[in-house]
Amino acid sequence: MTTTSLSYKTRFETHITAVQECLEEILTPQEPEVLWAAMRHGVLNGGKRIRPVLLIESCVACGGTQQKALPTACALELIHCYSLIHDDLPCMDNDDLRRGLPTVHKAFSEDMAVLAGDALLALAFGVIPDNTLDVPDKVLLQVITELSQAASIKGLVNGQADDILFANDLPDEERLYRIHSGKTGALFRFSTWAGAKLAEQPEPVVSLLAKYGETLGLAFQIVDDLLDVQGNNALLGKTLGKDEAQGKITFPAVYGIAGTETILKSHIETLYSILDALPTTIQTKNLRFLVEFVQQREF
Amino acid sequence: MTTTSLSYKTRFETHITAVQECLEEILTPQEPEVLWAAMRHGVLNGGKRIRPVLLIESCVACGGTQQKALPTACALELIHCYSLIHDDLPCMDNDDLRRGLPTVHKAFSEDMAVLAGDALLALAFGVIPDNTLDVPDKVLLQVITELSQAASIKGLVNGQADDILFANDLPDEERLYRIHSGKTGALFRFSTWAGAKLAEQPEPVVSLLAKYGETLGLAFQIVDDLLDVQGNNALLGKTLGKDEAQGKITFPAVYGIAGTETILKSHIETLYSILDALPTTIQTKNLRFLVEFVQQREF
Repeated sequence: MTTTSLSYKTRFETHITAVQECLEEILTPQEPEVLWAAMRHGVLNGGKRIRPVLLIESCVACGGTQQKALPTACALELIHCYSLIHDDLPCMDNDDLRRGLPTVHKAFSEDMAVLAGDALLALAFGVIPDNTLDVPDKVLLQVITELSQAASIKGLVNGQADDILFANDLPDEERLYRIHSGKTGALFRFSTWAGAKLAEQPEPVVSLLAKYGETLGLAFQIVDDLLDVQGNNALLGKTLGKDEAQGKITFPAVYGIAGTETILKSHIETLYSILDALPTTIQTKNLRFLVEFVQQREF
Repeated sequence: MTTTSLSYKTRFETHITAVQECLEEILTPQEPEVLWAAMRHGVLNGGKRIRPVLLIESCVACGGTQQKALPTACALELIHCYSLIHDDLPCMDNDDLRRGLPTVHKAFSEDMAVLAGDALLALAFGVIPDNTLDVPDKVLLQVITELSQAASIKGLVNGQADDILFANDLPDEERLYRIHSGKTGALFRFSTWAGAKLAEQPEPVVSLLAKYGETLGLAFQIVDDLLDVQGNNALLGKTLGKDEAQGKITFPAVYGIAGTETILKSHIETLYSILDALPTTIQTKNLRFLVEFVQQREF
Protein backbone atom coordinates (compact mmCIF):
# COMPACT_ATOMS: atom_id res chain seq x y z
CA MET A 1 0.00 0.00 0.00
CA THR A 2 1.32 3.47 -0.84
CA THR A 3 2.06 6.17 1.71
CA THR A 4 -0.87 8.12 0.27
CA SER A 5 -3.30 5.25 0.91
CA LEU A 6 -2.10 4.80 4.48
CA SER A 7 -2.24 8.53 4.98
CA TYR A 8 -5.87 8.60 3.64
CA LYS A 9 -6.95 6.20 6.35
CA THR A 10 -5.14 8.06 9.11
CA ARG A 11 -6.19 11.52 8.01
CA PHE A 12 -9.88 10.69 7.69
CA GLU A 13 -10.10 8.07 10.43
CA THR A 14 -12.61 10.04 12.52
CA HIS A 15 -14.92 10.49 9.51
CA ILE A 16 -14.59 6.86 8.41
CA THR A 17 -15.29 5.67 11.96
CA ALA A 18 -18.28 8.00 12.34
CA VAL A 19 -19.73 6.85 9.00
CA GLN A 20 -19.18 3.20 9.92
CA GLU A 21 -20.89 3.63 13.30
CA CYS A 22 -23.79 5.51 11.77
CA LEU A 23 -24.24 2.84 9.05
CA GLU A 24 -24.08 0.11 11.72
CA GLU A 25 -26.82 1.86 13.63
CA ILE A 26 -29.04 2.36 10.57
CA LEU A 27 -28.54 -1.31 9.72
CA THR A 28 -29.14 -2.77 13.20
CA PRO A 29 -30.61 -6.15 12.21
CA GLN A 30 -34.38 -6.52 12.07
CA GLU A 31 -36.62 -9.14 10.49
CA PRO A 32 -36.58 -10.80 8.02
CA GLU A 33 -33.08 -11.90 9.08
CA VAL A 34 -31.84 -12.90 5.60
CA LEU A 35 -32.81 -9.56 4.05
CA TRP A 36 -30.96 -7.63 6.74
CA ALA A 37 -27.92 -9.89 6.50
CA ALA A 38 -27.87 -9.20 2.75
CA MET A 39 -28.19 -5.44 3.31
CA ARG A 40 -25.40 -5.49 5.90
CA HIS A 41 -23.17 -7.62 3.65
CA GLY A 42 -23.57 -5.06 0.87
CA VAL A 43 -22.73 -2.05 3.05
CA LEU A 44 -20.60 -2.96 6.05
CA ASN A 45 -17.77 -4.84 4.34
CA GLY A 46 -15.24 -2.06 4.22
CA GLY A 47 -14.76 0.09 1.18
CA LYS A 48 -12.88 3.35 1.10
CA ARG A 49 -15.98 5.42 1.94
CA ILE A 50 -14.58 8.09 -0.34
CA ARG A 51 -17.98 9.64 -1.18
CA PRO A 52 -18.98 10.23 2.46
CA VAL A 53 -15.44 11.39 3.30
CA LEU A 54 -15.62 13.89 0.43
CA LEU A 55 -19.02 15.11 1.56
CA ILE A 56 -17.96 15.60 5.16
CA GLU A 57 -14.62 17.19 4.17
CA SER A 58 -16.37 19.63 1.81
CA CYS A 59 -18.75 20.61 4.60
CA VAL A 60 -15.89 21.05 7.10
CA ALA A 61 -13.81 22.97 4.52
CA CYS A 62 -16.77 25.35 4.19
CA GLY A 63 -16.99 25.97 7.94
CA GLY A 64 -19.58 23.25 8.69
CA THR A 65 -19.20 20.27 11.01
CA GLN A 66 -18.89 16.49 10.65
CA GLN A 67 -22.15 16.12 12.57
CA LYS A 68 -24.10 18.32 10.14
CA ALA A 69 -22.89 16.30 7.17
CA LEU A 70 -22.99 12.77 8.64
CA PRO A 71 -26.61 11.76 7.85
CA THR A 72 -26.36 12.90 4.21
CA ALA A 73 -22.93 11.24 3.93
CA CYS A 74 -24.42 7.93 5.15
CA ALA A 75 -27.44 8.24 2.83
CA LEU A 76 -25.01 8.74 -0.04
CA GLU A 77 -23.00 5.66 0.93
CA LEU A 78 -26.20 3.56 1.21
CA ILE A 79 -27.05 4.62 -2.36
CA HIS A 80 -23.55 3.87 -3.63
CA CYS A 81 -23.72 0.40 -2.02
CA TYR A 82 -27.22 -0.33 -3.39
CA SER A 83 -25.93 0.49 -6.88
CA LEU A 84 -23.01 -1.93 -6.52
CA ILE A 85 -25.37 -4.73 -5.39
CA HIS A 86 -27.65 -4.24 -8.41
CA ASP A 87 -24.75 -3.70 -10.87
CA ASP A 88 -23.22 -7.03 -9.78
CA LEU A 89 -26.44 -9.00 -10.53
CA PRO A 90 -26.28 -11.80 -13.12
CA CYS A 91 -28.55 -9.85 -15.50
CA MET A 92 -26.28 -6.79 -15.22
CA ASP A 93 -22.45 -7.07 -14.90
CA ASN A 94 -22.57 -10.60 -13.43
CA ASP A 95 -19.77 -10.14 -10.89
CA ASP A 96 -18.87 -12.74 -8.26
CA LEU A 97 -16.38 -10.74 -6.23
CA ARG A 98 -16.56 -7.34 -4.57
CA ARG A 99 -14.16 -5.91 -1.99
CA GLY A 100 -12.56 -9.37 -1.82
CA LEU A 101 -15.82 -11.08 -0.79
CA PRO A 102 -18.64 -12.82 -2.67
CA THR A 103 -21.14 -10.33 -4.11
CA VAL A 104 -24.55 -10.16 -2.38
CA HIS A 105 -26.35 -12.40 -4.88
CA LYS A 106 -23.55 -14.98 -4.54
CA ALA A 107 -23.45 -14.87 -0.73
CA PHE A 108 -27.28 -14.90 -0.51
CA SER A 109 -29.54 -15.17 -3.56
CA GLU A 110 -30.59 -13.12 -6.53
CA ASP A 111 -34.01 -12.18 -5.14
CA MET A 112 -32.53 -11.07 -1.80
CA ALA A 113 -29.88 -9.03 -3.67
CA VAL A 114 -32.59 -7.17 -5.63
CA LEU A 115 -34.58 -6.54 -2.44
CA ALA A 116 -31.55 -5.57 -0.32
CA GLY A 117 -30.63 -2.97 -2.97
CA ASP A 118 -34.19 -1.68 -3.11
CA ALA A 119 -34.35 -1.38 0.68
CA LEU A 120 -31.04 0.52 0.91
CA LEU A 121 -32.09 2.96 -1.80
CA ALA A 122 -35.50 3.71 -0.26
CA LEU A 123 -34.07 3.86 3.26
CA ALA A 124 -31.40 6.42 2.27
CA PHE A 125 -33.90 9.19 1.60
CA GLY A 126 -35.38 8.94 5.09
CA VAL A 127 -31.98 9.05 6.79
CA ILE A 128 -31.46 12.72 5.87
CA PRO A 129 -34.65 14.30 7.26
CA ASP A 130 -34.76 11.92 10.20
CA ASN A 131 -31.23 12.57 11.52
CA THR A 132 -29.90 15.95 10.43
CA LEU A 133 -29.59 18.65 13.06
CA ASP A 134 -28.91 22.38 12.71
CA VAL A 135 -29.59 22.63 8.98
CA PRO A 136 -32.59 24.67 7.72
CA ASP A 137 -35.51 22.52 6.46
CA LYS A 138 -35.37 24.31 3.12
CA VAL A 139 -31.74 23.24 2.58
CA LEU A 140 -32.56 19.63 3.49
CA LEU A 141 -35.34 19.57 0.89
CA GLN A 142 -32.90 20.86 -1.75
CA VAL A 143 -30.40 18.17 -0.74
CA ILE A 144 -33.05 15.44 -1.06
CA THR A 145 -34.14 16.69 -4.51
CA GLU A 146 -30.55 16.76 -5.74
CA LEU A 147 -29.76 13.29 -4.36
CA SER A 148 -32.90 11.89 -5.99
CA GLN A 149 -31.74 13.20 -9.38
CA ALA A 150 -28.12 12.11 -8.93
CA ALA A 151 -29.24 8.61 -7.94
CA SER A 152 -31.56 8.17 -10.90
CA ILE A 153 -32.06 9.87 -14.22
CA LYS A 154 -29.33 12.47 -14.00
CA GLY A 155 -26.71 10.10 -12.74
CA LEU A 156 -26.35 6.60 -11.44
CA VAL A 157 -29.14 4.76 -13.28
CA ASN A 158 -28.71 6.33 -16.68
CA GLY A 159 -24.93 5.88 -16.42
CA GLN A 160 -25.40 2.17 -15.73
CA ALA A 161 -28.02 1.89 -18.51
CA ASP A 162 -25.63 3.58 -20.98
CA ASP A 163 -22.83 1.29 -19.82
CA ILE A 164 -24.96 -1.78 -20.62
CA LEU A 165 -26.51 -0.42 -23.81
CA PHE A 166 -23.21 0.78 -25.28
CA ALA A 167 -21.31 -2.47 -24.53
CA ASN A 168 -19.62 -3.72 -27.71
CA ASP A 169 -20.36 -0.40 -29.43
CA LEU A 170 -17.59 1.72 -30.86
CA PRO A 171 -15.62 3.10 -27.87
CA ASP A 172 -16.10 6.79 -28.63
CA GLU A 173 -15.46 9.82 -26.48
CA GLU A 174 -19.06 11.02 -26.17
CA ARG A 175 -20.32 7.63 -24.98
CA LEU A 176 -17.42 7.31 -22.56
CA TYR A 177 -18.21 10.64 -20.90
CA ARG A 178 -21.95 9.91 -20.78
CA ILE A 179 -21.32 6.62 -18.98
CA HIS A 180 -18.84 7.94 -16.46
CA SER A 181 -20.53 11.28 -15.77
CA GLY A 182 -23.52 9.15 -14.78
CA LYS A 183 -21.94 6.18 -13.03
CA THR A 184 -19.24 8.03 -11.09
CA GLY A 185 -19.45 11.77 -11.73
CA ALA A 186 -22.97 12.32 -10.40
CA LEU A 187 -22.47 10.95 -6.87
CA PHE A 188 -19.03 12.57 -6.52
CA ARG A 189 -20.54 15.85 -7.69
CA PHE A 190 -23.39 15.44 -5.23
CA SER A 191 -20.99 14.78 -2.35
CA THR A 192 -19.08 18.06 -2.64
CA TRP A 193 -22.18 20.05 -3.71
CA ALA A 194 -24.03 18.80 -0.62
CA GLY A 195 -21.08 19.50 1.70
CA ALA A 196 -21.03 23.15 0.63
CA LYS A 197 -24.84 23.39 0.65
CA LEU A 198 -25.18 21.94 4.17
CA ALA A 199 -22.60 24.50 5.32
CA GLU A 200 -24.87 27.15 3.74
CA GLN A 201 -22.27 28.57 1.36
CA PRO A 202 -23.34 31.01 -1.37
CA GLU A 203 -24.00 29.76 -4.91
CA PRO A 204 -20.55 30.48 -6.46
CA VAL A 205 -18.78 28.40 -3.80
CA VAL A 206 -21.36 25.61 -4.08
CA SER A 207 -20.85 25.52 -7.87
CA LEU A 208 -17.06 25.43 -7.65
CA LEU A 209 -17.18 22.59 -5.14
CA ALA A 210 -19.68 20.71 -7.32
CA LYS A 211 -17.28 21.05 -10.26
CA TYR A 212 -14.39 19.87 -8.06
CA GLY A 213 -16.42 16.77 -7.04
CA GLU A 214 -17.47 15.94 -10.58
CA THR A 215 -13.92 16.28 -11.93
CA LEU A 216 -12.53 14.26 -9.03
CA GLY A 217 -15.11 11.55 -9.83
CA LEU A 218 -13.91 11.38 -13.43
CA ALA A 219 -10.28 11.22 -12.28
CA PHE A 220 -11.27 8.44 -9.86
CA GLN A 221 -12.91 6.54 -12.73
CA ILE A 222 -9.89 7.00 -15.00
CA VAL A 223 -7.68 5.49 -12.29
CA ASP A 224 -10.27 2.71 -11.86
CA ASP A 225 -10.06 1.90 -15.57
CA LEU A 226 -6.25 1.91 -15.43
CA LEU A 227 -6.28 -0.36 -12.36
CA ASP A 228 -8.64 -2.77 -14.16
CA VAL A 229 -5.91 -3.17 -16.80
CA GLN A 230 -2.78 -2.88 -14.65
CA GLY A 231 -3.87 -3.34 -11.04
CA ASN A 232 -3.33 -5.83 -8.27
CA ASN A 233 -6.26 -8.26 -7.83
CA ALA A 234 -5.52 -8.89 -4.15
CA LEU A 235 -5.38 -5.19 -3.22
CA LEU A 236 -8.49 -4.32 -5.22
CA GLY A 237 -10.56 -7.30 -4.11
CA LYS A 238 -12.41 -7.60 -7.38
CA THR A 239 -12.19 -9.45 -10.69
CA LEU A 240 -9.78 -7.65 -13.03
CA GLY A 241 -9.85 -7.43 -16.83
CA LYS A 242 -13.66 -7.76 -16.89
CA ASP A 243 -14.23 -4.42 -18.63
CA GLU A 244 -12.36 -5.54 -21.72
CA ALA A 245 -13.90 -9.03 -21.66
CA GLN A 246 -17.40 -7.48 -21.56
CA GLY A 247 -16.66 -5.00 -24.34
CA LYS A 248 -17.13 -2.06 -21.95
CA ILE A 249 -16.23 1.45 -23.08
CA THR A 250 -13.35 2.54 -20.87
CA PHE A 251 -10.76 5.34 -20.97
CA PRO A 252 -7.96 2.95 -22.09
CA ALA A 253 -10.28 1.56 -24.81
CA VAL A 254 -10.82 5.06 -26.20
CA TYR A 255 -7.42 6.70 -25.61
CA GLY A 256 -4.95 3.86 -24.96
CA ILE A 257 -2.96 3.71 -21.72
CA ALA A 258 -0.59 6.59 -22.46
CA GLY A 259 -3.48 8.77 -23.70
CA THR A 260 -5.48 7.95 -20.56
CA GLU A 261 -2.55 8.98 -18.37
CA THR A 262 -2.36 12.32 -20.19
CA ILE A 263 -6.09 12.90 -19.63
CA LEU A 264 -5.73 12.02 -15.96
CA LYS A 265 -2.98 14.60 -15.67
CA SER A 266 -5.15 17.28 -17.24
CA HIS A 267 -8.03 16.47 -14.84
CA ILE A 268 -5.63 16.80 -11.91
CA GLU A 269 -4.54 20.23 -13.16
CA THR A 270 -8.19 21.29 -13.50
CA LEU A 271 -8.80 20.15 -9.92
CA TYR A 272 -6.00 22.28 -8.52
CA SER A 273 -7.18 25.31 -10.51
CA ILE A 274 -10.73 24.90 -9.13
CA LEU A 275 -9.35 24.78 -5.60
CA ASP A 276 -7.21 27.87 -6.30
CA ALA A 277 -10.34 29.72 -7.43
CA LEU A 278 -12.15 29.20 -4.09
CA PRO A 279 -12.28 32.12 -1.62
CA THR A 280 -9.56 32.02 1.04
CA THR A 281 -12.19 31.37 3.73
CA ILE A 282 -12.50 27.80 2.39
CA GLN A 283 -9.97 25.41 3.95
CA THR A 284 -8.71 23.46 0.93
CA LYS A 285 -5.89 21.48 2.54
CA ASN A 286 -7.70 18.14 2.79
CA LEU A 287 -9.43 18.64 -0.55
CA ARG A 288 -5.97 19.00 -2.11
CA PHE A 289 -4.84 15.84 -0.36
CA LEU A 290 -7.86 13.99 -1.83
CA VAL A 291 -6.73 14.92 -5.35
CA GLU A 292 -3.34 13.40 -4.57
CA PHE A 293 -4.97 10.30 -3.09
CA VAL A 294 -7.23 9.69 -6.09
CA GLN A 295 -4.29 10.09 -8.45
CA GLN A 296 -2.03 7.70 -6.55
CA ARG A 297 -4.40 5.09 -5.17
CA GLU A 298 -3.71 1.42 -5.78
CA PHE A 299 -6.99 0.09 -4.31
CA MET B 1 -67.85 -4.21 -14.78
CA THR B 2 -69.96 -3.44 -11.69
CA THR B 3 -71.76 -0.15 -11.09
CA THR B 4 -69.29 0.49 -8.27
CA SER B 5 -66.29 0.15 -10.60
CA LEU B 6 -67.83 2.48 -13.18
CA SER B 7 -68.75 4.87 -10.44
CA TYR B 8 -65.15 4.80 -9.11
CA LYS B 9 -63.86 6.02 -12.45
CA THR B 10 -66.48 8.75 -12.77
CA ARG B 11 -66.25 9.95 -9.21
CA PHE B 12 -62.46 10.25 -9.17
CA GLU B 13 -61.95 11.15 -12.81
CA THR B 14 -60.39 14.55 -12.05
CA HIS B 15 -57.89 12.98 -9.63
CA ILE B 16 -57.05 10.11 -12.00
CA THR B 17 -56.56 12.54 -14.89
CA ALA B 18 -54.41 14.87 -12.80
CA VAL B 19 -52.25 11.96 -11.62
CA GLN B 20 -51.90 10.65 -15.16
CA GLU B 21 -50.89 14.07 -16.50
CA CYS B 22 -48.42 14.60 -13.69
CA LEU B 23 -46.87 11.14 -14.22
CA GLU B 24 -46.67 11.82 -17.99
CA GLU B 25 -44.81 15.03 -17.25
CA ILE B 26 -42.40 13.42 -14.78
CA LEU B 27 -41.75 10.68 -17.34
CA THR B 28 -41.27 12.89 -20.41
CA PRO B 29 -38.82 10.73 -22.37
CA GLN B 30 -35.11 11.44 -22.04
CA GLU B 31 -32.04 9.40 -22.92
CA PRO B 32 -31.28 6.53 -22.88
CA GLU B 33 -34.45 5.84 -24.87
CA VAL B 34 -34.85 2.17 -23.87
CA LEU B 35 -34.60 2.94 -20.16
CA TRP B 36 -37.30 5.63 -20.41
CA ALA B 37 -39.54 3.42 -22.51
CA ALA B 38 -39.24 0.74 -19.82
CA MET B 39 -40.04 3.25 -17.06
CA ARG B 40 -43.05 4.56 -18.97
CA HIS B 41 -44.27 1.02 -19.74
CA GLY B 42 -44.20 0.20 -16.04
CA VAL B 43 -46.10 3.33 -14.97
CA LEU B 44 -48.33 4.70 -17.71
CA ASN B 45 -50.27 1.57 -18.67
CA GLY B 46 -53.43 2.23 -16.73
CA GLY B 47 -54.01 0.76 -13.32
CA LYS B 48 -56.65 1.91 -10.89
CA ARG B 49 -54.39 4.52 -9.27
CA ILE B 50 -56.14 3.67 -6.00
CA ARG B 51 -53.20 4.73 -3.80
CA PRO B 52 -52.94 8.26 -5.25
CA VAL B 53 -56.74 8.58 -5.29
CA LEU B 54 -56.83 7.62 -1.62
CA LEU B 55 -54.08 10.09 -0.78
CA ILE B 56 -55.75 12.97 -2.60
CA GLU B 57 -59.21 12.11 -1.23
CA SER B 58 -57.86 11.94 2.33
CA CYS B 59 -56.28 15.34 1.89
CA VAL B 60 -59.48 16.82 0.40
CA ALA B 61 -61.62 15.19 3.13
CA CYS B 62 -59.39 16.96 5.67
CA GLY B 63 -59.87 20.37 4.05
CA GLY B 64 -56.79 20.25 1.80
CA THR B 65 -56.67 20.48 -1.98
CA GLN B 66 -55.90 18.11 -4.86
CA GLN B 67 -52.97 20.37 -5.80
CA LYS B 68 -51.38 20.09 -2.36
CA ALA B 69 -51.54 16.29 -2.47
CA LEU B 70 -50.70 15.66 -6.13
CA PRO B 71 -46.86 15.49 -5.99
CA THR B 72 -46.89 13.09 -3.02
CA ALA B 73 -49.65 11.05 -4.71
CA CYS B 74 -47.51 10.71 -7.85
CA ALA B 75 -44.40 9.83 -5.84
CA LEU B 76 -46.43 7.09 -4.15
CA GLU B 77 -47.65 5.72 -7.48
CA LEU B 78 -44.07 5.71 -8.87
CA ILE B 79 -43.03 3.63 -5.86
CA HIS B 80 -45.97 1.26 -6.25
CA CYS B 81 -45.10 0.79 -9.94
CA TYR B 82 -41.39 0.24 -9.25
CA SER B 83 -42.33 -2.49 -6.76
CA LEU B 84 -44.49 -4.26 -9.36
CA ILE B 85 -41.65 -4.17 -11.92
CA HIS B 86 -39.19 -5.73 -9.48
CA ASP B 87 -41.73 -8.23 -8.05
CA ASP B 88 -42.44 -9.51 -11.57
CA LEU B 89 -38.73 -10.27 -12.28
CA PRO B 90 -37.76 -13.88 -13.08
CA CYS B 91 -35.78 -14.14 -9.81
CA MET B 92 -38.83 -12.95 -7.84
CA ASP B 93 -42.43 -13.88 -8.79
CA ASN B 94 -41.57 -14.49 -12.46
CA ASP B 95 -44.74 -12.98 -13.95
CA ASP B 96 -45.26 -12.46 -17.69
CA LEU B 97 -48.46 -10.45 -17.61
CA ARG B 98 -49.45 -7.27 -15.78
CA ARG B 99 -52.49 -5.09 -16.46
CA GLY B 100 -53.10 -7.17 -19.58
CA LEU B 101 -49.67 -6.39 -21.06
CA PRO B 102 -46.25 -8.05 -20.98
CA THR B 103 -44.35 -7.20 -17.79
CA VAL B 104 -41.40 -4.81 -18.15
CA HIS B 105 -38.70 -7.51 -18.27
CA LYS B 106 -40.74 -9.34 -20.94
CA ALA B 107 -41.38 -6.24 -23.05
CA PHE B 108 -37.78 -5.03 -22.66
CA SER B 109 -35.11 -7.03 -20.81
CA GLU B 110 -34.25 -8.07 -17.31
CA ASP B 111 -31.46 -5.53 -16.86
CA MET B 112 -33.64 -2.65 -18.06
CA ALA B 113 -36.44 -3.81 -15.73
CA VAL B 114 -34.09 -3.68 -12.73
CA LEU B 115 -32.82 -0.23 -13.75
CA ALA B 116 -36.27 1.17 -14.61
CA GLY B 117 -37.49 0.13 -11.14
CA ASP B 118 -34.42 1.65 -9.50
CA ALA B 119 -34.89 4.93 -11.39
CA LEU B 120 -38.59 5.21 -10.47
CA LEU B 121 -37.85 4.58 -6.80
CA ALA B 122 -35.04 7.14 -6.59
CA LEU B 123 -36.96 9.67 -8.67
CA ALA B 124 -40.05 9.48 -6.44
CA PHE B 125 -38.32 11.07 -3.45
CA GLY B 126 -37.36 14.17 -5.44
CA VAL B 127 -40.87 14.68 -6.81
CA ILE B 128 -42.22 15.70 -3.39
CA PRO B 129 -39.81 18.52 -2.44
CA ASP B 130 -39.50 19.69 -6.03
CA ASN B 131 -43.22 20.12 -6.78
CA THR B 132 -45.26 20.65 -3.62
CA LEU B 133 -46.66 24.12 -2.99
CA ASP B 134 -48.27 25.59 0.14
CA VAL B 135 -47.15 22.90 2.57
CA PRO B 136 -44.66 23.76 5.37
CA ASP B 137 -41.12 22.41 4.79
CA LYS B 138 -41.25 20.62 8.13
CA VAL B 139 -44.33 18.64 7.04
CA LEU B 140 -42.71 17.70 3.72
CA LEU B 141 -39.67 16.33 5.56
CA GLN B 142 -41.97 14.20 7.76
CA VAL B 143 -43.76 12.93 4.65
CA ILE B 144 -40.44 11.96 3.00
CA THR B 145 -39.26 10.13 6.15
CA GLU B 146 -42.53 8.20 6.38
CA LEU B 147 -42.52 7.28 2.69
CA SER B 148 -38.92 6.09 2.94
CA GLN B 149 -39.89 3.73 5.77
CA ALA B 150 -43.12 2.52 4.11
CA ALA B 151 -41.24 1.81 0.87
CA SER B 152 -38.50 -0.18 2.55
CA ILE B 153 -38.00 -1.84 5.89
CA LYS B 154 -41.33 -1.06 7.48
CA GLY B 155 -43.38 -1.99 4.46
CA LEU B 156 -42.92 -2.86 0.84
CA VAL B 157 -39.51 -4.55 0.81
CA ASN B 158 -39.85 -6.60 3.96
CA GLY B 159 -43.36 -7.64 2.90
CA GLN B 160 -42.01 -8.90 -0.42
CA ALA B 161 -39.05 -10.58 1.32
CA ASP B 162 -41.41 -12.34 3.74
CA ASP B 163 -43.62 -13.36 0.83
CA ILE B 164 -40.65 -15.04 -0.88
CA LEU B 165 -39.07 -16.48 2.26
CA PHE B 166 -42.33 -17.94 3.60
CA ALA B 167 -43.36 -19.54 0.27
CA ASN B 168 -44.14 -23.23 0.84
CA ASP B 169 -44.12 -22.68 4.61
CA LEU B 170 -47.14 -23.48 6.75
CA PRO B 171 -49.81 -20.88 5.86
CA ASP B 172 -50.26 -19.41 9.34
CA GLU B 173 -52.00 -16.26 10.47
CA GLU B 174 -48.94 -14.41 11.76
CA ARG B 175 -46.99 -14.89 8.54
CA LEU B 176 -50.02 -13.88 6.49
CA TYR B 177 -50.39 -10.58 8.33
CA ARG B 178 -46.66 -9.86 8.21
CA ILE B 179 -46.63 -10.31 4.44
CA HIS B 180 -49.72 -8.24 3.72
CA SER B 181 -49.11 -5.47 6.25
CA GLY B 182 -45.85 -4.99 4.41
CA LYS B 183 -46.78 -5.55 0.78
CA THR B 184 -50.13 -3.75 0.77
CA GLY B 185 -50.86 -2.27 4.19
CA ALA B 186 -47.86 0.06 4.38
CA LEU B 187 -48.46 2.07 1.18
CA PHE B 188 -52.23 2.25 1.80
CA ARG B 189 -51.52 3.42 5.33
CA PHE B 190 -49.04 5.98 4.01
CA SER B 191 -51.57 7.31 1.47
CA THR B 192 -54.23 8.28 4.02
CA TRP B 193 -51.68 9.30 6.67
CA ALA B 194 -50.01 11.64 4.16
CA GLY B 195 -53.35 13.06 2.99
CA ALA B 196 -54.22 14.10 6.54
CA LYS B 197 -50.68 15.28 7.26
CA LEU B 198 -50.45 17.47 4.13
CA ALA B 199 -53.78 19.04 5.17
CA GLU B 200 -52.10 19.76 8.54
CA GLN B 201 -54.62 17.87 10.67
CA PRO B 202 -53.87 17.23 14.37
CA GLU B 203 -52.40 13.90 15.50
CA PRO B 204 -55.68 12.09 16.47
CA VAL B 205 -57.16 12.66 12.99
CA VAL B 206 -53.90 11.67 11.27
CA SER B 207 -53.81 8.45 13.31
CA LEU B 208 -57.42 7.55 12.55
CA LEU B 209 -56.90 8.11 8.84
CA ALA B 210 -53.69 6.04 8.93
CA LYS B 211 -55.65 3.20 10.55
CA TYR B 212 -58.39 3.56 7.92
CA GLY B 213 -55.79 3.31 5.11
CA GLU B 214 -54.04 0.31 6.62
CA THR B 215 -57.32 -1.56 7.15
CA LEU B 216 -58.51 -0.66 3.66
CA GLY B 217 -55.21 -2.03 2.31
CA LEU B 218 -55.76 -5.35 4.06
CA ALA B 219 -59.37 -5.49 2.74
CA PHE B 220 -58.00 -4.71 -0.74
CA GLN B 221 -55.51 -7.58 -0.41
CA ILE B 222 -58.18 -9.99 0.83
CA VAL B 223 -60.28 -9.21 -2.25
CA ASP B 224 -57.12 -9.62 -4.37
CA ASP B 225 -56.55 -13.08 -2.93
CA LEU B 226 -60.21 -14.00 -3.57
CA LEU B 227 -60.00 -12.70 -7.15
CA ASP B 228 -56.85 -14.78 -7.73
CA VAL B 229 -58.95 -17.85 -6.93
CA GLN B 230 -62.32 -16.83 -8.36
CA GLY B 231 -61.68 -13.83 -10.63
CA ASN B 232 -61.92 -13.04 -14.30
CA ASN B 233 -58.53 -13.19 -16.07
CA ALA B 234 -59.60 -10.73 -18.81
CA LEU B 235 -60.85 -8.08 -16.39
CA LEU B 236 -57.85 -8.41 -14.08
CA GLY B 237 -55.24 -8.51 -16.85
CA LYS B 238 -52.91 -10.81 -14.96
CA THR B 239 -52.14 -14.50 -14.59
CA LEU B 240 -54.57 -16.09 -12.12
CA GLY B 241 -54.03 -19.03 -9.78
CA LYS B 242 -50.32 -18.22 -9.47
CA ASP B 243 -50.40 -17.71 -5.71
CA GLU B 244 -51.44 -21.32 -5.10
CA ALA B 245 -49.04 -22.67 -7.73
CA GLN B 246 -46.14 -20.83 -6.04
CA GLY B 247 -47.13 -21.99 -2.55
CA LYS B 248 -47.82 -18.39 -1.47
CA ILE B 249 -49.45 -17.69 1.89
CA THR B 250 -52.84 -16.12 1.09
CA PHE B 251 -56.04 -15.45 3.03
CA PRO B 252 -57.89 -18.36 1.33
CA ALA B 253 -54.91 -20.66 2.08
CA VAL B 254 -55.14 -19.81 5.79
CA TYR B 255 -58.91 -19.40 6.30
CA GLY B 256 -60.59 -21.05 3.28
CA ILE B 257 -62.90 -19.03 1.04
CA ALA B 258 -65.84 -18.77 3.45
CA GLY B 259 -63.51 -17.85 6.32
CA THR B 260 -61.82 -15.20 4.15
CA GLU B 261 -65.21 -13.66 3.31
CA THR B 262 -66.02 -13.43 7.02
CA ILE B 263 -62.72 -11.68 7.70
CA LEU B 264 -63.36 -9.27 4.84
CA LYS B 265 -66.74 -8.42 6.38
CA SER B 266 -65.15 -7.71 9.75
CA HIS B 267 -62.54 -5.41 8.13
CA ILE B 268 -65.33 -3.52 6.38
CA GLU B 269 -67.11 -3.02 9.72
CA THR B 270 -63.88 -1.75 11.28
CA LEU B 271 -63.51 0.70 8.41
CA TYR B 272 -66.96 2.19 8.93
CA SER B 273 -66.38 2.48 12.67
CA ILE B 274 -63.09 4.35 12.07
CA LEU B 275 -64.86 6.78 9.74
CA ASP B 276 -67.63 7.24 12.34
CA ALA B 277 -65.00 8.15 14.93
CA LEU B 278 -63.63 11.05 12.87
CA PRO B 279 -64.64 14.61 13.82
CA THR B 280 -67.59 15.95 11.83
CA THR B 281 -65.31 18.50 10.16
CA ILE B 282 -63.84 15.65 8.07
CA GLN B 283 -65.84 14.96 4.89
CA THR B 284 -66.06 11.17 4.86
CA LYS B 285 -68.45 10.64 1.93
CA ASN B 286 -65.84 9.61 -0.66
CA LEU B 287 -63.85 7.64 1.92
CA ARG B 288 -67.03 5.62 2.59
CA PHE B 289 -67.48 5.08 -1.11
CA LEU B 290 -63.91 3.75 -1.35
CA VAL B 291 -64.73 1.09 1.26
CA GLU B 292 -67.66 0.00 -0.91
CA PHE B 293 -65.48 0.02 -4.02
CA VAL B 294 -62.75 -2.12 -2.47
CA GLN B 295 -65.32 -4.61 -1.22
CA GLN B 296 -67.10 -4.96 -4.56
CA ARG B 297 -64.31 -4.55 -7.12
CA GLU B 298 -63.91 -7.16 -9.82
CA PHE B 299 -60.64 -5.79 -11.28
